[in-house]
Amino acid sequence: MMFRIAECRVTPILIEDPPLLNAQGVHQPYTPRTIVEIVTENGVVGLGETYGDAEYLTVAEAFAPRLAGAGLTVNDLGARVAACAAGAGVTGLDAAVNAGGLRGSRTLDKVAASVASGFEVAILDALGRELGVPVHQLLGGKVRDRVEYSAYLFYRWARHPGPGEPCDDWGAALDPEGVVAQARRMVERYGFTSFKLKGGVLPPFEEVDAVLALHDTFPGRPLRLDPNGAWSVPTSLAVAARLEGVAEYLEDPTSGTAGMAEVARGTSLPLATNMCVTGFAEIPEAFARNAVQVVLSDHHYWGGLRATQDLAAVCRTFGVGMSMHSNTHLGISLAAMTQVAATVPGLRYACDTHRPWQTEDVITRPHTFTDGALPVTDTPGLGVELDRDALARLHRRYAESDVRGRDDAAAMRRVHPDWRTPDLPRW
Amino acid sequence: MMFRIAECRVTPILIEDPPLLNAQGVHQPYTPRTIVEIVTENGVVGLGETYGDAEYLTVAEAFAPRLAGAGLTVNDLGARVAACAAGAGVTGLDAAVNAGGLRGSRTLDKVAASVASGFEVAILDALGRELGVPVHQLLGGKVRDRVEYSAYLFYRWARHPGPGEPCDDWGAALDPEGVVAQARRMVERYGFTSFKLKGGVLPPFEEVDAVLALHDTFPGRPLRLDPNGAWSVPTSLAVAARLEGVAEYLEDPTSGTAGMAEVARGTSLPLATNMCVTGFAEIPEAFARNAVQVVLSDHHYWGGLRATQDLAAVCRTFGVGMSMHSNTHLGISLAAMTQVAATVPGLRYACDTHRPWQTEDVITRPHTFTDGALPVTDTPGLGVELDRDALARLHRRYAESDVRGRDDAAAMRRVHPDWRTPDLPRW
Ligand SMILES: [Mg+2]
Ligand SMILES: [Mg+2]
Repeated sequence: MMFRIAECRVTPILIEDPPLLNAQGVHQPYTPRTIVEIVTENGVVGLGETYGDAEYLTVAEAFAPRLAGAGLTVNDLGARVAACAAGAGVTGLDAAVNAGGLRGSRTLDKVAASVASGFEVAILDALGRELGVPVHQLLGGKVRDRVEYSAYLFYRWARHPGPGEPCDDWGAALDPEGVVAQARRMVERYGFTSFKLKGGVLPPFEEVDAVLALHDTFPGRPLRLDPNGAWSVPTSLAVAARLEGVAEYLEDPTSGTAGMAEVARGTSLPLATNMCVTGFAEIPEAFARNAVQVVLSDHHYWGGLRATQDLAAVCRTFGVGMSMHSNTHLGISLAAMTQVAATVPGLRYACDTHRPWQTEDVITRPHTFTDGALPVTDTPGLGVELDRDALARLHRRYAESDVRGRDDAAAMRRVHPDWRTPDLPRW
Repeated sequence: MMFRIAECRVTPILIEDPPLLNAQGVHQPYTPRTIVEIVTENGVVGLGETYGDAEYLTVAEAFAPRLAGAGLTVNDLGARVAACAAGAGVTGLDAAVNAGGLRGSRTLDKVAASVASGFEVAILDALGRELGVPVHQLLGGKVRDRVEYSAYLFYRWARHPGPGEPCDDWGAALDPEGVVAQARRMVERYGFTSFKLKGGVLPPFEEVDAVLALHDTFPGRPLRLDPNGAWSVPTSLAVAARLEGVAEYLEDPTSGTAGMAEVARGTSLPLATNMCVTGFAEIPEAFARNAVQVVLSDHHYWGGLRATQDLAAVCRTFGVGMSMHSNTHLGISLAAMTQVAATVPGLRYACDTHRPWQTEDVITRPHTFTDGALPVTDTPGLGVELDRDALARLHRRYAESDVRGRDDAAAMRRVHPDWRTPDLPRW
């Protein structure tokens, strides 16, 4: 029995995002995502999700019609999307701005891989539903029944500056006490047992103080700090020296392979990355220089779930650890992350998750964490159902808005008019 | 819907093998294989095949009972078999003798990977049959509809020395004319368009003459020569100089990573291997030294079909080519090779195949090549059916024989009593 795709729908949406701070600026009140629906000839619908910024959406909309009549084959999907992207007229990828500034260099190939990931997940979901098996079974089967996630802590404002903009009740966090309070609430609600602090916001040793406060409050718990490459090599080394024995790893302390390699030589702390190595082409040099000890996979970066397994194989072969990155996304992607994480042997770090910060979703039963983990479901496909009312509402918001991308620096300028994307290293 | 294994059967058999020559000696009249049957709780049977030498069979028989009640999960199968192998009492793996001498260093981990491959293929076959989809669909889908194979040419005797031993009608091939005649017959029967000569048998430039004769007879066709590491670095370089522009690649001209790297530095011919790099642990050093430009995957070596895809991902990441190795095996393994080869993007070399030399099989409809290729079937599972009468007959032969492994040097001593496994490099 072979299955064919009858139709593929691509729907851009805007979702609420809280005022989380990072090295580039602050999250906008709304951020775009793209929801992918693959409809098979049998009428089965598979779901996928990826970035919604204009360049991604352009490629996704150009590619979707090409899937009509295609099989549920994912091994050459990246190449097919890349070929389509080459003719889609995407521009402006040179500047390391916006979200790109938080995820390393951006190329058309990387945009194509991110778009491919949305289609790949939707195809695997459709295939799983057709066959009555979970996605993990299509990926070789789960090797664990639960996937651990870490509490993703942010410096943040209490609310966005504009009137009527979305608002949550987490309050501000701008010092160690605020970070610890946020962590406590995360633990109470979700039971997380490890913690990541998004840094690059305050002077480095203020952020170190926050990590030390977490260490005092939750002794023995794994801790991570991620300044998104905002530090110089000497600053990185000074922070590393202070956090040895405290942190589990240091994430992208400085920018670029050469700098990361220099930091790695000067500390016993493993260095993790979702900036220095975000595509297969960057692996040989980074591994040869021992610039990174943990790659933070993200199926949206690497081209999908099978590509994530490919990355895991490469890392395993070279003795490099793997963990999982997350930024603003919804439940379709969280389900996909959980399914693939369940299949990766030797995944020994808790995955990042942005989920607690999202107040909206397009699935009928958004995930919730118990004891800091999600169960790996055996429900067919991804195990999530599309909330069509929510999708329509969030798409209407998109249609009625002029937000077509994420620009953390522009969002920051609404409060600090002189803000510009910092030259790196900032400290 | 999740599936469970009710029972797993492991059956050793002996199959006929012609008197093919290589650097170690000559193939025995009979060689052992292990046939694996996975029976699900629904009574569906999946088939696998691997080596049948005593050390492999010992591990396979120890592991098989552990599968009762297990799911159809393959991602951790290698680790489970390795754990079992550690306690199975396998000895005698240090000596690089027998088949081991043709496939690089042998370790318990490598034996475990080979055993795991037989179980993995059987599990994927069972899952495909349960779900009604081909194995390639469980591996992400095929990216091609046919898999090309190359004609695998051997120096050989007309027949084995003993009375009543199996005999075919290919005749002897001990010089360029014999090799070309063999190649012509392969082309007439199967339409192969590329050729591999197993070398390491005659003085190197006699083998070069055979390759040049093939080049004259089949101008422009890809040609390969594989002496299984029998040459020194200077000899390898002299051969390489003569075959630049003639051969597609040179396979394991010399033994060991250091020697291969030295040869690679001195020639523009790519070096291929199924000896220098036969496990993931050997990749980092070999790739760092640029010792090999093409890895000959073999799912029996690497731990299965998903491991073959892992290897493909590693090779793709590092710009190393991939092709596929084959030695004495039956149709279950050929079906498995074809299914996985169909899923690997960028497989740009024809795969090796030993199939034309095998006169027996345990499947009801043994494969035959057309235009040098096999079609990639969409039949559920591997697309082959077990011939139970043949299995019973070949198992009876095993039970009534004392052959428990493959020892090409011992087979050679039946004709040349003074033969001993050559010290390498021989030339
Ligand atoms: Mg990061
Ligand atoms: Mg070889």
